[in-house]
Amino acid sequence: MLVNGVFADAVKANDRGLMYGDGVFRTLLVRKGVPQHWDRHYRRLSLDCERIGISPPAMETLTEELLRLAKGDCVAKIVVTRGAGERGYLPDASVEPTRIISKNPIPDHRILNEVNARFCDLRLSHQPRLAGIKHLNRLENVLARMEWRDPAIAEGLLLDINDHVIEGTMSSLFLYHEGCLIAPDLASCGVEGVQRERVIEYSMASNTPLQIRRFGQDELLKAEEVFLVNSVIGLWQIVSIGERRWEKGGFCGELRKWLQ
Amino acid sequence: MLVNGVFADAVKANDRGLMYGDGVFRTLLVRKGVPQHWDRHYRRLSLDCERIGISPPAMETLTEELLRLAKGDCVAKIVVTRGAGERGYLPDASVEPTRIISKNPIPDHRILNEVNARFCDLRLSHQPRLAGIKHLNRLENVLARMEWRDPAIAEGLLLDINDHVIEGTMSSLFLYHEGCLIAPDLASCGVEGVQRERVIEYSMASNTPLQIRRFGQDELLKAEEVFLVNSVIGLWQIVSIGERRWEKGGFCGELRKWLQ
Repeated sequence: MLVNGVFADAVKANDRGLMYGDGVFRTLLVRKGVPQHWDRHYRRLSLDCERIGISPPAMETLTEELLRLAKGDCVAKIVVTRGAGERGYLPDASVEPTRIISKNPIPDHRILNEVNARFCDLRLSHQPRLAGIKHLNRLENVLARMEWRDPAIAEGLLLDINDHVIEGTMSSLFLYHEGCLIAPDLASCGVEGVQRERVIEYSMASNTPLQIRRFGQDELLKAEEVFLVNSVIGLWQIVSIGERRWEKGGFCGELRKWLQ
Repeated sequence: MLVNGVFADAVKANDRGLMYGDGVFRTLLVRKGVPQHWDRHYRRLSLDCERIGISPPAMETLTEELLRLAKGDCVAKIVVTRGAGERGYLPDASVEPTRIISKNPIPDHRILNEVNARFCDLRLSHQPRLAGIKHLNRLENVLARMEWRDPAIAEGLLLDINDHVIEGTMSSLFLYHEGCLIAPDLASCGVEGVQRERVIEYSMASNTPLQIRRFGQDELLKAEEVFLVNSVIGLWQIVSIGERRWEKGGFCGELRKWLQ
Protein backbone atom coordinates (compact mmCIF):
# COMPACT_ATOMS: atom_id res chain seq x y z
CA MET A 1 0.00 0.00 0.00
CA LEU A 2 1.22 3.51 -0.76
CA VAL A 3 0.07 6.40 1.42
CA ASN A 4 1.02 9.73 -0.16
CA GLY A 5 3.61 7.91 -2.24
CA VAL A 6 5.30 6.12 0.64
CA PHE A 7 5.00 2.40 1.41
CA ALA A 8 2.88 2.22 4.55
CA ASP A 9 -0.05 0.35 6.02
CA ALA A 10 -1.53 3.09 8.17
CA VAL A 11 -3.05 6.55 7.87
CA LYS A 12 -3.33 9.34 10.43
CA ALA A 13 -6.21 8.63 12.80
CA ASN A 14 -7.49 12.18 12.32
CA ASP A 15 -7.81 11.79 8.56
CA ARG A 16 -11.14 13.20 7.46
CA GLY A 17 -11.66 10.12 5.32
CA LEU A 18 -11.97 8.16 8.55
CA MET A 19 -13.68 10.83 10.65
CA TYR A 20 -16.40 11.75 8.14
CA GLY A 21 -16.05 9.56 5.05
CA ASP A 22 -14.76 12.78 3.49
CA GLY A 23 -13.24 11.42 0.30
CA VAL A 24 -13.71 9.39 -2.87
CA PHE A 25 -12.36 6.19 -4.40
CA ARG A 26 -12.10 4.07 -7.54
CA THR A 27 -11.28 0.40 -8.01
CA LEU A 28 -9.71 -0.93 -11.19
CA LEU A 29 -8.20 -4.00 -12.75
CA VAL A 30 -4.47 -4.23 -13.45
CA ARG A 31 -3.25 -6.78 -16.01
CA LYS A 32 0.45 -7.47 -16.44
CA GLY A 33 1.16 -4.22 -14.63
CA VAL A 34 -1.14 -2.20 -16.91
CA PRO A 35 -4.04 -0.42 -15.15
CA GLN A 36 -7.08 -0.97 -17.38
CA HIS A 37 -8.92 2.17 -18.56
CA TRP A 38 -6.83 4.28 -16.25
CA ASP A 39 -7.54 7.51 -18.11
CA ARG A 40 -11.28 7.03 -17.56
CA HIS A 41 -10.82 6.11 -13.89
CA TYR A 42 -8.65 9.13 -13.32
CA ARG A 43 -11.19 11.41 -15.00
CA ARG A 44 -14.04 10.07 -12.84
CA LEU A 45 -11.94 10.25 -9.67
CA SER A 46 -10.96 13.85 -10.30
CA LEU A 47 -14.55 14.86 -11.22
CA ASP A 48 -15.72 13.26 -7.97
CA CYS A 49 -13.03 15.16 -6.02
CA GLU A 50 -14.16 18.42 -7.58
CA ARG A 51 -17.81 17.80 -6.83
CA ILE A 52 -17.06 17.68 -3.10
CA GLY A 53 -14.43 20.42 -3.18
CA ILE A 54 -11.22 18.36 -2.91
CA SER A 55 -8.30 19.33 -5.21
CA PRO A 56 -7.68 16.20 -7.27
CA PRO A 57 -4.12 14.86 -7.18
CA ALA A 58 -2.24 15.32 -10.46
CA MET A 59 -2.64 12.48 -12.95
CA GLU A 60 1.16 12.06 -13.18
CA THR A 61 1.42 11.59 -9.42
CA LEU A 62 -1.27 8.91 -9.28
CA THR A 63 -0.01 7.20 -12.43
CA GLU A 64 3.52 6.97 -11.07
CA GLU A 65 2.30 5.59 -7.73
CA LEU A 66 -0.08 3.14 -9.39
CA LEU A 67 2.60 1.75 -11.70
CA ARG A 68 5.12 1.53 -8.83
CA LEU A 69 2.72 -0.48 -6.64
CA ALA A 70 0.53 -2.49 -8.94
CA LYS A 71 2.76 -5.01 -10.74
CA GLY A 72 1.36 -8.11 -12.39
CA ASP A 73 -2.34 -8.92 -12.22
CA CYS A 74 -4.27 -7.37 -9.36
CA VAL A 75 -7.07 -5.07 -8.32
CA ALA A 76 -5.90 -1.56 -7.49
CA LYS A 77 -7.93 0.73 -5.26
CA ILE A 78 -7.28 4.45 -5.15
CA VAL A 79 -8.69 6.48 -2.27
CA VAL A 80 -8.39 10.26 -2.10
CA THR A 81 -9.50 11.93 1.13
CA ARG A 82 -9.67 15.61 2.00
CA GLY A 83 -6.72 14.98 4.34
CA ALA A 84 -5.93 14.99 8.06
CA GLY A 85 -7.10 17.84 10.23
CA GLU A 86 -8.60 19.16 13.42
CA ARG A 87 -11.97 17.95 14.68
CA GLY A 88 -14.89 19.80 13.05
CA TYR A 89 -16.83 19.55 9.80
CA LEU A 90 -15.30 22.69 8.27
CA PRO A 91 -11.99 21.68 6.67
CA ASP A 92 -9.03 23.88 7.39
CA ALA A 93 -8.07 25.93 4.31
CA SER A 94 -4.57 24.39 4.45
CA VAL A 95 -5.69 20.75 4.49
CA GLU A 96 -3.81 18.56 1.98
CA PRO A 97 -5.52 15.56 0.33
CA THR A 98 -4.38 12.07 1.31
CA ARG A 99 -3.73 9.46 -1.42
CA ILE A 100 -4.03 5.78 -0.55
CA ILE A 101 -3.28 3.24 -3.26
CA SER A 102 -3.67 -0.42 -2.42
CA LYS A 103 -3.03 -3.63 -4.29
CA ASN A 104 -5.56 -6.41 -3.78
CA PRO A 105 -5.92 -9.96 -5.11
CA ILE A 106 -8.26 -10.53 -8.05
CA PRO A 107 -11.43 -12.01 -6.51
CA ASP A 108 -12.41 -15.57 -7.46
CA HIS A 109 -15.84 -14.43 -8.64
CA ARG A 110 -14.22 -12.55 -11.53
CA ILE A 111 -14.34 -15.69 -13.67
CA LEU A 112 -18.14 -15.91 -13.41
CA ASN A 113 -20.23 -15.07 -16.47
CA GLU A 114 -23.72 -15.87 -15.18
CA VAL A 115 -24.85 -15.24 -11.61
CA ASN A 116 -27.81 -15.41 -9.25
CA ALA A 117 -28.98 -12.15 -7.71
CA ARG A 118 -31.53 -10.94 -5.17
CA PHE A 119 -33.35 -7.72 -4.35
CA CYS A 120 -32.13 -6.01 -1.18
CA ASP A 121 -34.56 -4.68 1.44
CA LEU A 122 -32.54 -1.52 2.07
CA ARG A 123 -33.67 1.44 -0.03
CA LEU A 124 -31.15 4.01 -1.27
CA SER A 125 -31.77 7.56 -0.10
CA HIS A 126 -31.97 10.50 -2.51
CA GLN A 127 -29.12 12.97 -2.29
CA PRO A 128 -28.58 14.78 -5.61
CA ARG A 129 -25.48 16.52 -4.21
CA LEU A 130 -23.76 13.14 -3.87
CA ALA A 131 -25.49 11.10 -6.60
CA GLY A 132 -23.07 9.52 -9.06
CA ILE A 133 -20.01 10.13 -6.86
CA LYS A 134 -18.03 7.12 -5.63
CA HIS A 135 -17.52 8.67 -2.19
CA LEU A 136 -16.52 7.06 1.09
CA ASN A 137 -20.00 7.29 2.68
CA ARG A 138 -20.90 3.69 1.87
CA LEU A 139 -22.88 2.50 4.89
CA GLU A 140 -25.91 1.88 2.69
CA ASN A 141 -23.87 -0.53 0.56
CA VAL A 142 -22.44 -2.23 3.65
CA LEU A 143 -25.88 -2.74 5.25
CA ALA A 144 -27.35 -3.94 1.96
CA ARG A 145 -24.49 -6.40 1.44
CA MET A 146 -24.94 -7.71 4.99
CA GLU A 147 -28.49 -8.83 4.13
CA TRP A 148 -27.29 -12.18 2.77
CA ARG A 149 -24.35 -14.56 3.22
CA ASP A 150 -25.43 -17.29 0.78
CA PRO A 151 -22.38 -17.63 -1.51
CA ALA A 152 -24.65 -18.84 -4.34
CA ILE A 153 -25.99 -15.29 -4.62
CA ALA A 154 -23.36 -13.08 -6.20
CA GLU A 155 -25.00 -9.68 -5.98
CA GLY A 156 -27.87 -7.78 -4.38
CA LEU A 157 -29.91 -5.23 -6.31
CA LEU A 158 -30.67 -1.88 -4.74
CA LEU A 159 -33.88 0.08 -5.17
CA ASP A 160 -34.32 3.67 -4.10
CA ILE A 161 -36.90 5.12 -1.72
CA ASN A 162 -39.37 5.31 -4.65
CA ASP A 163 -38.78 1.63 -5.51
CA HIS A 164 -36.88 2.37 -8.69
CA VAL A 165 -34.04 -0.03 -9.45
CA ILE A 166 -30.68 1.76 -9.25
CA GLU A 167 -27.71 -0.65 -9.19
CA GLY A 168 -26.06 -3.61 -7.51
CA THR A 169 -24.28 -3.16 -4.15
CA MET A 170 -20.95 -3.07 -6.03
CA SER A 171 -21.95 -2.95 -9.69
CA SER A 172 -23.91 -1.02 -12.31
CA LEU A 173 -27.08 -2.56 -13.70
CA PHE A 174 -28.60 -2.63 -17.20
CA LEU A 175 -31.61 -4.17 -18.91
CA TYR A 176 -31.75 -5.31 -22.51
CA HIS A 177 -35.25 -5.57 -23.97
CA GLU A 178 -36.69 -5.54 -27.50
CA GLY A 179 -33.43 -4.39 -29.02
CA CYS A 180 -33.00 -1.56 -26.55
CA LEU A 181 -30.49 -1.00 -23.74
CA ILE A 182 -31.98 0.52 -20.56
CA ALA A 183 -29.86 2.09 -17.81
CA PRO A 184 -31.16 3.46 -14.49
CA ASP A 185 -31.28 7.21 -14.04
CA LEU A 186 -28.64 8.15 -11.42
CA ALA A 187 -29.74 11.76 -10.80
CA SER A 188 -30.78 11.08 -7.19
CA CYS A 189 -28.54 8.22 -6.07
CA GLY A 190 -26.15 5.53 -7.30
CA VAL A 191 -22.58 5.48 -8.58
CA GLU A 192 -21.41 6.46 -12.07
CA GLY A 193 -18.95 3.69 -12.82
CA VAL A 194 -16.33 3.56 -15.56
CA GLN A 195 -17.70 0.26 -16.80
CA ARG A 196 -21.20 1.77 -17.00
CA GLU A 197 -19.70 4.55 -19.12
CA ARG A 198 -18.19 1.93 -21.44
CA VAL A 199 -21.49 0.06 -21.82
CA ILE A 200 -23.16 3.33 -22.77
CA GLU A 201 -20.38 3.86 -25.29
CA TYR A 202 -21.03 0.39 -26.70
CA SER A 203 -24.66 1.28 -27.29
CA MET A 204 -23.43 4.06 -29.57
CA ALA A 205 -20.73 1.97 -31.25
CA SER A 206 -23.23 -0.83 -31.95
CA ASN A 207 -26.22 1.37 -32.81
CA THR A 208 -28.22 -0.10 -29.92
CA PRO A 209 -30.90 2.40 -28.83
CA LEU A 210 -30.24 3.53 -25.23
CA GLN A 211 -32.70 4.80 -22.64
CA ILE A 212 -31.49 6.27 -19.35
CA ARG A 213 -34.60 6.38 -17.19
CA ARG A 214 -36.43 5.11 -14.13
CA PHE A 215 -37.84 1.60 -13.92
CA GLY A 216 -39.09 -0.74 -11.22
CA GLN A 217 -38.72 -4.39 -10.22
CA ASP A 218 -41.54 -5.52 -12.54
CA GLU A 219 -39.90 -4.12 -15.64
CA LEU A 220 -36.58 -5.66 -14.64
CA LEU A 221 -38.18 -9.08 -14.20
CA LYS A 222 -39.80 -8.83 -17.64
CA ALA A 223 -36.61 -7.80 -19.45
CA GLU A 224 -35.06 -10.27 -21.90
CA GLU A 225 -31.58 -9.84 -20.40
CA VAL A 226 -30.43 -8.21 -17.17
CA PHE A 227 -26.76 -7.69 -16.39
CA LEU A 228 -24.28 -6.14 -14.01
CA VAL A 229 -20.91 -4.59 -14.78
CA ASN A 230 -17.96 -3.19 -12.91
CA SER A 231 -14.28 -2.73 -13.62
CA VAL A 232 -13.26 -5.88 -11.77
CA ILE A 233 -15.98 -8.41 -12.65
CA GLY A 234 -16.43 -7.30 -16.25
CA LEU A 235 -19.99 -8.39 -17.09
CA TRP A 236 -22.22 -10.70 -15.08
CA GLN A 237 -25.48 -11.74 -16.66
CA ILE A 238 -28.19 -12.35 -14.05
CA VAL A 239 -29.70 -15.79 -14.68
CA SER A 240 -31.90 -15.99 -11.58
CA ILE A 241 -33.68 -13.78 -9.08
CA GLY A 242 -35.94 -15.87 -6.84
CA GLU A 243 -38.17 -17.93 -9.14
CA ARG A 244 -37.38 -15.94 -12.28
CA ARG A 245 -34.87 -17.64 -14.58
CA TRP A 246 -33.10 -16.32 -17.65
CA GLU A 247 -31.25 -18.18 -20.42
CA LYS A 248 -27.76 -17.12 -21.45
CA GLY A 249 -28.34 -14.06 -23.61
CA GLY A 250 -26.94 -13.11 -26.98
CA PHE A 251 -26.65 -9.42 -26.19
CA CYS A 252 -24.67 -10.09 -23.01
CA GLY A 253 -22.32 -12.39 -24.91
CA GLU A 254 -21.60 -9.77 -27.59
CA LEU A 255 -21.17 -6.96 -25.08
CA ARG A 256 -18.83 -9.05 -22.90
CA LYS A 257 -16.58 -9.68 -25.89
CA TRP A 258 -16.55 -5.98 -26.73
CA LEU A 259 -15.76 -4.97 -23.13
CA GLN A 260 -12.79 -7.36 -23.03
CA MET B 1 -4.89 9.39 20.98
CA LEU B 2 -5.54 5.77 21.89
CA VAL B 3 -6.15 3.20 19.17
CA ASN B 4 -7.42 -0.07 20.64
CA GLY B 5 -6.03 1.02 24.00
CA VAL B 6 -2.53 1.82 22.76
CA PHE B 7 -1.08 5.33 22.35
CA ALA B 8 -0.89 5.87 18.60
CA ASP B 9 -1.69 8.45 15.96
CA ALA B 10 -2.53 6.12 13.07
CA VAL B 11 -4.98 3.42 12.10
CA LYS B 12 -4.68 0.63 9.56
CA ALA B 13 -5.31 2.00 6.08
CA ASN B 14 -7.73 -0.87 5.38
CA ASP B 15 -9.94 0.01 8.34
CA ARG B 16 -13.57 -0.10 7.24
CA GLY B 17 -14.14 3.18 9.03
CA LEU B 18 -11.92 4.79 6.41
CA MET B 19 -12.92 2.63 3.45
CA TYR B 20 -16.71 2.91 3.90
CA GLY B 21 -17.44 5.19 6.86
CA ASP B 22 -18.41 1.91 8.52
CA GLY B 23 -18.57 3.01 12.15
CA VAL B 24 -20.03 5.41 14.70
CA PHE B 25 -18.79 8.12 17.05
CA ARG B 26 -19.65 10.35 19.99
CA THR B 27 -18.08 13.57 21.24
CA LEU B 28 -18.22 14.63 24.86
CA LEU B 29 -16.93 17.18 27.31
CA VAL B 30 -14.40 16.22 29.99
CA ARG B 31 -14.07 18.47 33.04
CA LYS B 32 -11.26 17.95 35.54
CA GLY B 33 -10.79 14.50 34.11
CA VAL B 34 -14.47 13.58 34.48
CA PRO B 35 -16.28 12.69 31.22
CA GLN B 36 -19.66 14.44 31.41
CA HIS B 37 -22.74 12.22 31.04
CA TRP B 38 -20.55 9.33 30.07
CA ASP B 39 -23.22 6.72 30.87
CA ARG B 40 -25.59 8.34 28.37
CA HIS B 41 -22.90 8.68 25.72
CA TYR B 42 -21.93 5.06 26.14
CA ARG B 43 -25.55 3.95 25.85
CA ARG B 44 -26.07 5.92 22.64
CA LEU B 45 -22.76 4.73 21.19
CA SER B 46 -23.57 1.10 21.87
CA LEU B 47 -27.13 1.43 20.51
CA ASP B 48 -25.68 2.97 17.36
CA CYS B 49 -23.18 0.10 17.05
CA GLU B 50 -25.99 -2.43 17.38
CA ARG B 51 -28.13 -0.73 14.76
CA ILE B 52 -25.44 -1.25 12.14
CA GLY B 53 -24.40 -4.68 13.40
CA ILE B 54 -21.12 -3.83 15.18
CA SER B 55 -20.51 -5.47 18.59
CA PRO B 56 -20.15 -2.52 20.96
CA PRO B 57 -16.94 -2.46 23.01
CA ALA B 58 -17.50 -3.17 26.72
CA MET B 59 -18.25 -0.12 28.84
CA GLU B 60 -15.36 -0.95 31.20
CA THR B 61 -12.89 -0.98 28.30
CA LEU B 62 -13.97 2.40 26.95
CA THR B 63 -14.22 3.93 30.44
CA GLU B 64 -10.70 2.84 31.33
CA GLU B 65 -9.30 4.18 28.04
CA LEU B 66 -11.22 7.43 28.31
CA LEU B 67 -10.01 8.09 31.87
CA ARG B 68 -6.44 7.17 30.92
CA LEU B 69 -6.37 9.62 27.99
CA ALA B 70 -8.66 12.50 28.89
CA LYS B 71 -7.13 14.27 31.89
CA GLY B 72 -8.09 17.83 32.82
CA ASP B 73 -10.55 19.80 30.66
CA CYS B 74 -10.92 18.68 27.05
CA VAL B 75 -13.24 17.34 24.39
CA ALA B 76 -13.05 13.57 24.00
CA LYS B 77 -14.10 11.87 20.81
CA ILE B 78 -14.77 8.15 20.68
CA VAL B 79 -14.90 6.41 17.30
CA VAL B 80 -15.83 2.74 16.94
CA THR B 81 -15.43 1.21 13.49
CA ARG B 82 -16.27 -2.28 12.30
CA GLY B 83 -12.53 -2.89 12.07
CA ALA B 84 -9.86 -3.57 9.46
CA GLY B 85 -10.47 -6.07 6.71
CA GLU B 86 -10.28 -7.17 3.13
CA ARG B 87 -11.72 -5.05 0.32
CA GLY B 88 -15.47 -5.62 -0.14
CA TYR B 89 -18.68 -4.43 1.46
CA LEU B 90 -19.40 -7.72 3.25
CA PRO B 91 -17.45 -7.68 6.51
CA ASP B 92 -15.52 -10.82 7.34
CA ALA B 93 -17.19 -12.72 10.20
CA SER B 94 -13.94 -12.46 12.19
CA VAL B 95 -13.55 -8.68 11.92
CA GLU B 96 -12.81 -6.99 15.29
CA PRO B 97 -14.05 -3.43 15.98
CA THR B 98 -11.48 -0.63 16.18
CA ARG B 99 -11.64 1.87 19.07
CA ILE B 100 -10.18 5.34 18.58
CA ILE B 101 -10.27 7.76 21.49
CA SER B 102 -8.90 11.23 20.96
CA LYS B 103 -8.39 14.23 23.20
CA ASN B 104 -9.10 17.65 21.65
CA PRO B 105 -8.95 21.22 22.90
CA ILE B 106 -12.19 22.83 24.08
CA PRO B 107 -13.25 25.11 21.20
CA ASP B 108 -13.36 28.87 21.81
CA HIS B 109 -17.00 29.06 20.76
CA ARG B 110 -18.02 27.05 23.84
CA ILE B 111 -18.27 30.27 25.87
CA LEU B 112 -20.94 31.70 23.56
CA ASN B 113 -24.52 31.90 24.80
CA GLU B 114 -26.19 33.68 21.89
CA VAL B 115 -25.27 33.08 18.24
CA ASN B 116 -26.13 33.98 14.68
CA ALA B 117 -27.25 31.15 12.41
CA ARG B 118 -28.17 30.59 8.78
CA PHE B 119 -30.15 28.10 6.74
CA CYS B 120 -28.03 25.75 4.63
CA ASP B 121 -28.84 25.04 0.98
CA LEU B 122 -27.99 21.35 1.25
CA ARG B 123 -31.01 19.15 2.04
CA LEU B 124 -30.63 16.05 4.20
CA SER B 125 -31.62 12.81 2.52
CA HIS B 126 -34.09 10.36 4.09
CA GLN B 127 -32.61 7.08 5.24
CA PRO B 128 -34.66 5.56 8.08
CA ARG B 129 -32.09 2.74 8.47
CA LEU B 130 -29.47 5.31 9.52
CA ALA B 131 -31.63 8.07 11.01
CA GLY B 132 -30.65 9.02 14.55
CA ILE B 133 -27.29 7.21 14.38
CA LYS B 134 -24.11 9.25 14.80
CA HIS B 135 -22.32 7.27 12.09
CA LEU B 136 -19.19 8.10 10.12
CA ASN B 137 -21.03 8.88 6.85
CA ARG B 138 -20.97 12.61 7.38
CA LEU B 139 -20.40 14.09 3.91
CA GLU B 140 -23.74 15.89 4.09
CA ASN B 141 -22.58 17.71 7.23
CA VAL B 142 -19.20 18.51 5.67
CA LEU B 143 -20.75 19.95 2.49
CA ALA B 144 -23.31 21.91 4.51
CA ARG B 145 -20.61 23.33 6.80
CA MET B 146 -18.54 24.34 3.75
CA GLU B 147 -21.35 26.64 2.59
CA TRP B 148 -20.10 29.53 4.74
CA ARG B 149 -16.82 30.74 6.25
CA ASP B 150 -18.08 33.92 7.95
CA PRO B 151 -16.95 33.46 11.58
CA ALA B 152 -19.85 35.65 12.77
CA ILE B 153 -22.20 32.79 11.87
CA ALA B 154 -21.82 30.02 14.40
CA GLU B 155 -24.06 27.36 12.94
CA GLY B 156 -25.99 26.33 9.82
CA LEU B 157 -29.46 24.82 10.01
CA LEU B 158 -30.26 21.77 7.95
CA LEU B 159 -33.59 21.04 6.30
CA ASP B 160 -34.52 17.70 4.79
CA ILE B 161 -35.65 16.95 1.23
CA ASN B 162 -39.21 17.89 2.24
CA ASP B 163 -38.03 21.24 3.67
CA HIS B 164 -38.60 20.26 7.28
CA VAL B 165 -36.06 21.65 9.74
CA ILE B 166 -33.99 18.84 11.27
CA GLU B 167 -30.91 20.09 13.13
CA GLY B 168 -27.72 22.15 12.98
CA THR B 169 -24.64 20.81 11.17
CA MET B 170 -23.18 19.80 14.56
CA SER B 171 -26.04 20.40 17.00
CA SER B 172 -29.63 19.52 17.85
CA LEU B 173 -32.31 22.15 17.38
CA PHE B 174 -35.40 23.08 19.42
CA LEU B 175 -38.13 25.70 19.31
CA TYR B 176 -39.87 27.19 22.32
CA HIS B 177 -43.27 28.73 21.60
CA GLU B 178 -46.34 29.54 23.69
CA GLY B 179 -45.11 27.56 26.65
CA CYS B 180 -44.31 24.50 24.56
CA LEU B 181 -41.02 22.85 23.58
CA ILE B 182 -40.88 21.60 19.97
CA ALA B 183 -38.25 19.13 18.74
CA PRO B 184 -37.83 17.95 15.13
CA ASP B 185 -38.90 14.40 14.30
CA LEU B 186 -35.76 12.38 13.52
CA ALA B 187 -37.44 9.31 12.02
CA SER B 188 -35.98 9.90 8.53
CA CYS B 189 -32.71 11.74 9.17
CA GLY B 190 -30.71 13.60 11.80
CA VAL B 191 -28.67 12.60 14.85
CA GLU B 192 -30.05 11.66 18.27
CA GLY B 193 -27.69 13.51 20.57
CA VAL B 194 -27.19 13.06 24.29
CA GLN B 195 -27.83 16.74 24.89
CA ARG B 196 -31.10 16.49 22.94
CA GLU B 197 -32.07 13.61 25.22
CA ARG B 198 -31.34 15.80 28.26
CA VAL B 199 -33.45 18.69 26.92
CA ILE B 200 -36.34 16.26 26.42
CA GLU B 201 -35.80 15.12 30.01
CA TYR B 202 -35.93 18.73 31.16
CA SER B 203 -39.33 19.16 29.52
CA MET B 204 -40.58 16.39 31.78
CA ALA B 205 -38.77 17.62 34.90
CA SER B 206 -40.15 21.14 34.37
CA ASN B 207 -43.62 20.15 33.17
CA THR B 208 -43.05 21.89 29.84
CA PRO B 209 -45.29 20.32 27.18
CA LEU B 210 -43.15 18.68 24.48
CA GLN B 211 -43.99 18.03 20.83
CA ILE B 212 -41.73 15.90 18.65
CA ARG B 213 -42.92 16.61 15.13
CA ARG B 214 -42.19 18.08 11.71
CA PHE B 215 -41.99 21.83 11.13
CA GLY B 216 -40.66 24.15 8.46
CA GLN B 217 -38.62 27.36 8.22
CA ASP B 218 -41.69 29.59 8.67
CA GLU B 219 -42.64 28.06 12.00
CA LEU B 220 -39.05 28.31 13.20
CA LEU B 221 -38.88 32.00 12.29
CA LYS B 222 -42.13 32.67 14.20
CA ALA B 223 -41.04 30.81 17.35
CA GLU B 224 -40.40 32.86 20.51
CA GLU B 225 -37.06 31.17 21.16
CA VAL B 226 -34.92 28.92 18.97
CA PHE B 227 -31.88 27.15 20.32
CA LEU B 228 -29.17 24.61 19.59
CA VAL B 229 -27.55 22.14 21.94
CA ASN B 230 -24.72 19.65 21.90
CA SER B 231 -22.47 18.08 24.49
CA VAL B 232 -19.61 20.51 23.87
CA ILE B 233 -21.33 23.87 23.34
CA GLY B 234 -24.06 23.35 25.93
CA LEU B 235 -26.88 25.63 24.75
CA TRP B 236 -26.71 28.34 22.10
CA GLN B 237 -29.72 30.54 21.68
CA ILE B 238 -30.12 31.74 18.10
CA VAL B 239 -30.48 35.54 18.13
CA SER B 240 -30.37 36.13 14.37
CA ILE B 241 -31.06 34.38 11.08
CA GLY B 242 -30.83 36.85 8.20
CA GLU B 243 -33.11 39.78 9.05
CA ARG B 244 -34.93 37.99 11.87
CA ARG B 245 -33.74 38.98 15.37
CA TRP B 246 -34.56 37.47 18.74
CA GLU B 247 -34.09 38.90 22.24
CA LYS B 248 -32.34 36.84 24.90
CA GLY B 249 -35.01 34.39 26.05
CA GLY B 250 -36.13 33.37 29.51
CA PHE B 251 -36.69 29.74 28.63
CA CYS B 252 -33.18 29.38 27.19
CA GLY B 253 -31.71 30.97 30.33
CA GLU B 254 -33.50 28.54 32.65
CA LEU B 255 -32.70 25.51 30.53
CA ARG B 256 -29.03 26.47 30.26
CA LYS B 257 -28.78 26.63 34.04
CA TRP B 258 -30.45 23.24 34.37
CA LEU B 259 -28.17 21.65 31.74
CA GLN B 260 -25.07 22.90 33.57
